[in-house]
Amino acid sequence: MQNQILLGSFLVSIIAILYALYLGSKVKKYDAGNEKMQEISDAIHKGAMAFLNREYKIMLAFMVVVAIILYFAIPHGLLQAIGFVFGCILSATAGRLGMHIATKANVRTAWACNSDIGKGLKIAFSSGVVMGMFVVGLAVLGIASLHYVFSALYADYSPEWLFGFGFGASYIALFARVGGGIYTKAADVGADLVGKVEKGIPEDDPRNPAVIADNVGDNVGDVAGMGADLLESYVESILAAMLIGFLAFSANREEYILLPLGIASIGILASIIGTFFVRAGNKNNLTASLNMGVLAASIIMAVLTFLLIKNVVGNTGIFWATITGLVAGIAIGLSTEYYTSAHQKPAKSISEASKTGAGTNIIEGLAVGMWSTLIPVVAVCVGILAAFYLAGGSTDFKAGLYGVAISAVGMLSTLGITLATDTYGPVADNAAGISEMAKLGKKTRERAEALDAVGNTTAAIGKGFAIGSAALTSLVLYVTFVEVLRAKGIDIILDVTNPKVLVGIFLGGLLPFIFAALLMTAVGKAAIKIINEVRRQFKTIKGLMEGKAKPDYERCIHISTDGALKEMIIPGLIAVAAPIIVGVFLGAEALGGLLVGKTVVGFLMAVFMANAGGAWDNAKKYIEEGNFGGKGSDAHKAAVVGDTVGDPFKDTAGPAMNILIKLMGIVALVFVPWFI
Amino acid sequence: MQNQILLGSFLVSIIAILYALYLGSKVKKYDAGNEKMQEISDAIHKGAMAFLNREYKIMLAFMVVVAIILYFAIPHGLLQAIGFVFGCILSATAGRLGMHIATKANVRTAWACNSDIGKGLKIAFSSGVVMGMFVVGLAVLGIASLHYVFSALYADYSPEWLFGFGFGASYIALFARVGGGIYTKAADVGADLVGKVEKGIPEDDPRNPAVIADNVGDNVGDVAGMGADLLESYVESILAAMLIGFLAFSANREEYILLPLGIASIGILASIIGTFFVRAGNKNNLTASLNMGVLAASIIMAVLTFLLIKNVVGNTGIFWATITGLVAGIAIGLSTEYYTSAHQKPAKSISEASKTGAGTNIIEGLAVGMWSTLIPVVAVCVGILAAFYLAGGSTDFKAGLYGVAISAVGMLSTLGITLATDTYGPVADNAAGISEMAKLGKKTRERAEALDAVGNTTAAIGKGFAIGSAALTSLVLYVTFVEVLRAKGIDIILDVTNPKVLVGIFLGGLLPFIFAALLMTAVGKAAIKIINEVRRQFKTIKGLMEGKAKPDYERCIHISTDGALKEMIIPGLIAVAAPIIVGVFLGAEALGGLLVGKTVVGFLMAVFMANAGGAWDNAKKYIEEGNFGGKGSDAHKAAVVGDTVGDPFKDTAGPAMNILIKLMGIVALVFVPWFI
Repeated sequence: MQNQILLGSFLVSIIAILYALYLGSKVKKYDAGNEKMQEISDAIHKGAMAFLNREYKIMLAFMVVVAIILYFAIPHGLLQAIGFVFGCILSATAGRLGMHIATKANVRTAWACNSDIGKGLKIAFSSGVVMGMFVVGLAVLGIASLHYVFSALYADYSPEWLFGFGFGASYIALFARVGGGIYTKAADVGADLVGKVEKGIPEDDPRNPAVIADNVGDNVGDVAGMGADLLESYVESILAAMLIGFLAFSANREEYILLPLGIASIGILASIIGTFFVRAGNKNNLTASLNMGVLAASIIMAVLTFLLIKNVVGNTGIFWATITGLVAGIAIGLSTEYYTSAHQKPAKSISEASKTGAGTNIIEGLAVGMWSTLIPVVAVCVGILAAFYLAGGSTDFKAGLYGVAISAVGMLSTLGITLATDTYGPVADNAAGISEMAKLGKKTRERAEALDAVGNTTAAIGKGFAIGSAALTSLVLYVTFVEVLRAKGIDIILDVTNPKVLVGIFLGGLLPFIFAALLMTAVGKAAIKIINEVRRQFKTIKGLMEGKAKPDYERCIHISTDGALKEMIIPGLIAVAAPIIVGVFLGAEALGGLLVGKTVVGFLMAVFMANAGGAWDNAKKYIEEGNFGGKGSDAHKAAVVGDTVGDPFKDTAGPAMNILIKLMGIVALVFVPWFI
Repeated sequence: MQNQILLGSFLVSIIAILYALYLGSKVKKYDAGNEKMQEISDAIHKGAMAFLNREYKIMLAFMVVVAIILYFAIPHGLLQAIGFVFGCILSATAGRLGMHIATKANVRTAWACNSDIGKGLKIAFSSGVVMGMFVVGLAVLGIASLHYVFSALYADYSPEWLFGFGFGASYIALFARVGGGIYTKAADVGADLVGKVEKGIPEDDPRNPAVIADNVGDNVGDVAGMGADLLESYVESILAAMLIGFLAFSANREEYILLPLGIASIGILASIIGTFFVRAGNKNNLTASLNMGVLAASIIMAVLTFLLIKNVVGNTGIFWATITGLVAGIAIGLSTEYYTSAHQKPAKSISEASKTGAGTNIIEGLAVGMWSTLIPVVAVCVGILAAFYLAGGSTDFKAGLYGVAISAVGMLSTLGITLATDTYGPVADNAAGISEMAKLGKKTRERAEALDAVGNTTAAIGKGFAIGSAALTSLVLYVTFVEVLRAKGIDIILDVTNPKVLVGIFLGGLLPFIFAALLMTAVGKAAIKIINEVRRQFKTIKGLMEGKAKPDYERCIHISTDGALKEMIIPGLIAVAAPIIVGVFLGAEALGGLLVGKTVVGFLMAVFMANAGGAWDNAKKYIEEGNFGGKGSDAHKAAVVGDTVGDPFKDTAGPAMNILIKLMGIVALVFVPWFI
């Protein structure tokens, strides 16, 4: 049976990659519109690629260093180093190919809206599917290959050796999500401050040297960043479940090890089928079209997974654990949508509070963000308990843990299509922007905006999903860490009356606060460099203000990339060093405490910041729709302050939590031998 | 030996109370100044008493209900109910007497500044000593009495039965600190919004019906609230250490049980002696005078405690554990001062960020608040580990826990004098306000302001102390909870891989976010009621605007008291109900997790909010000193927004964390029999 699962994983992942390539070439064949549009789109596309090239060059140097450290520092270091490099390459490839298509699709979506909104939906969604399929396809292909090769070569193989691959995924996610998060806001601030405020030229004006950097930023954060983040969760939850399967069971062990890969493969198949359900048949309800695809994929996935589990391990409790994760993920996603939507109570209450000034706007926004942690935390708690007991945890503790790990796999099983709907969001957003900039006519713009509005909802749900999966993955990594130690004969009991464990929890809880503080000030620091460069170009390039000369977009992108990556170093180093230092100096118990503390507090802070930021943004939009005095009113000015605060919350510090909590978890696992 | 300690405790606590009464009558004998001053002061005094009367009336009703529940619901319910009522009465008495003198001292301090700043310092500080001595004297007297009576009456006595007394202290603190916290900001907002904004009359104008409520609020929050908060920490840390002594040792058990009372008594003696070191000999350095008193008390306390511990239990490790707590407390206090002082880097960075608007002011303030969690968390971590191992935890686990508990007692041992310096702050602040309102002349005002400036520093340190002690107390209560269960034969292991414990930690971490959200919006809701009342009075009382008729101050106070207490109900109920619900439905393991989660996250949030709020406040003051454009500049306007957000942070939600985390801990302990 295990050979069939492995074979199936290879086949399905290759199908996913081929499907992505096919859809990608199809997207590129669509008409890219008029000259002006193509010019804008080309600049964004080239800018995005310039960003990635610059980023990859810097990453490469560090990657080699890390690989060498892994090789020398831990047992089976060669395998871990190979896995690490392989993980880096696959994740970087998925990000690069996904971004490539996304930045081709935006202009084509905009042009398609000239004739048919259904066609626009199709192009934008297809580009999302490209991203989704590359991510899941390459992830499963990578894990399956390493597992196959390592287990064929070594008789004493343990899935523990695969964690280097997860570390690689984390490494890329750190750059894409944390570095990208700083980049996107720094470019935004830099472009606005010199362009709008100092020079008085409108937003998105091509004379502004930072305008392309700004547009690139949106893709960097929401396409590449989100993709790398979810790829990391996807890979690490599968790896953790495989390892717990290895440690927890003696009967059917091989089957339990490979089951996560099997579920993931079924999820990919279901996602591919689901994509065919997305058609804008009813043009008045675009959300329903996308939902139909996700729903179809979920149902297919559930049915096939049930059959798989029944046949492979015969334990249907495991099946229900899988579904538990899926339901928890949806609950978190919907809660995110509710708390950040412009037309629900929370954001409206912030709009209303703006009437009495910026102070009350901020207070209300912070309160909304804090409140919004309720449903996600309860969802995760119910999910953990349900998965544990459904998988038989009351009689077999380790089987229960396997259930929790599998629920994380279940949450992300249909990632192929859910990531497609997430990625759809920024593509549609860009399309609306391009149709505005290229002045495509009222009808077309309205259609593009309708697509964008749907995208806002799916993007919000996607954000919630990313946070929820990060929390669950981080938790599962921690449980795996403890079980690995126990399997090595370390009788570790993480009793919270043990002062070391307590101190670990305190230190773990502290870290997200420090990260958030660092990242919020990082945006300002990186922005200053762009501001100086934009000022320099306006000063030295003759004819720029008059539109006679072109600004040097690439230089702005390089400078802001370097600035963002520099600001990323300290938080990144802390995330890598903290678990190692605590583990080496205070011992494995304190490290265990740290992993719990950072997961709990990191999750709370991620939800709080992402939702407060989203709600501030939409509270401003609600006022701009004409409520409470509309644009230009005092309430609007107050809401702009909230939006300014919300930007680094939702696009930099908040999403960075996802990465940092997972990164610490995987570092602890990879360096386990050091803590014994 | 144990009889001597108990006898000593009785003696020392009675001396403290007599000393407080003596100083109180001495303060009242000072000249209360001219008629105008007396009028203002009388109104504040009467208002404060009206607030307390109103509050106590409502508290009384609930107190009876809780006492009845205790009586019927748990074993030894009669004793717990008696302890509860006794705790309520003693804490309320300390608060009432302390407030009484504080509101008499402010005007006398102002008047004394006419002739001699040293005299002003003496009066304000003496009134602080009154508060300090009532708190420590009544606390020790109460614990010693109950212990004496219960142990004389019952052969199977356990210090566990004393926790009703701690619950009483928590109950009063809930009203004083959480209710008071909402009250003070609601009155502030209400007075400002109608008075300054709508009617255009200056701040502190006696025509404003809410002006007295506003002034009362300062005393309510910083005098009564702070006192009740620290009394709660003081009582509960002593009780927890007594109980752990009872559970941990077989040899010298009685001595270990009474040692915390002994240390507290020595601390009181040392504090009394320390007060004689406070004299403004060098009038240019008032801070040094206050520090001299605290320093002298600390040294005396250390020497005597060393002798006590050496003679009573012979384990000098316990002595070092005591000192550990003291040092951790000082570190947290100094860090609070650094992060909130107008003349240190953090607040200045916020002032600077105000130049680019309210948005950057808020971002920088939030970042400063998050950063400021670093030192307090590290201090607590180092403190826990040091106390545990110094007390012999590596060979005797329970002895180590006793060390941690004793370190909490040590942190608060000199509370008699540290609370005096804290309380000095608001008294000096009020004195400066009165000298301004009564137009006492430049020289006098300058002297009063010099006293006030010193008070700001001591108040900041006091805030840090309150947070640190709350965290440590809450932690010790949790450890005690687990040990009590174990002593009852429940083999509880709070392993954090157990999903129930994990879920408990998540839920515990969630609660501080929910409390903070509730409390931040509570201020706005309570303020509306005051606003309506103030508007009504301006409308219906003829001649009010012209200064010919007097407003109804008391009615404003009643309405805002009722409003604040109403808003307090939900957070208070959640704090009481959450541990009970989790304990009953998810079991003791989940409850244990909850207690850890809420302590860690509550501590982080308390520090974050208190320091961000303090820093915003002083960033505004720094600009008002003439920096970055001074008063009225754009930077100043931005800084005002930060201050508005900071107010509920530092005066409502932040301090409320202290109470809520302790309250949950004591509830878990009192209702232990329900979770078995």
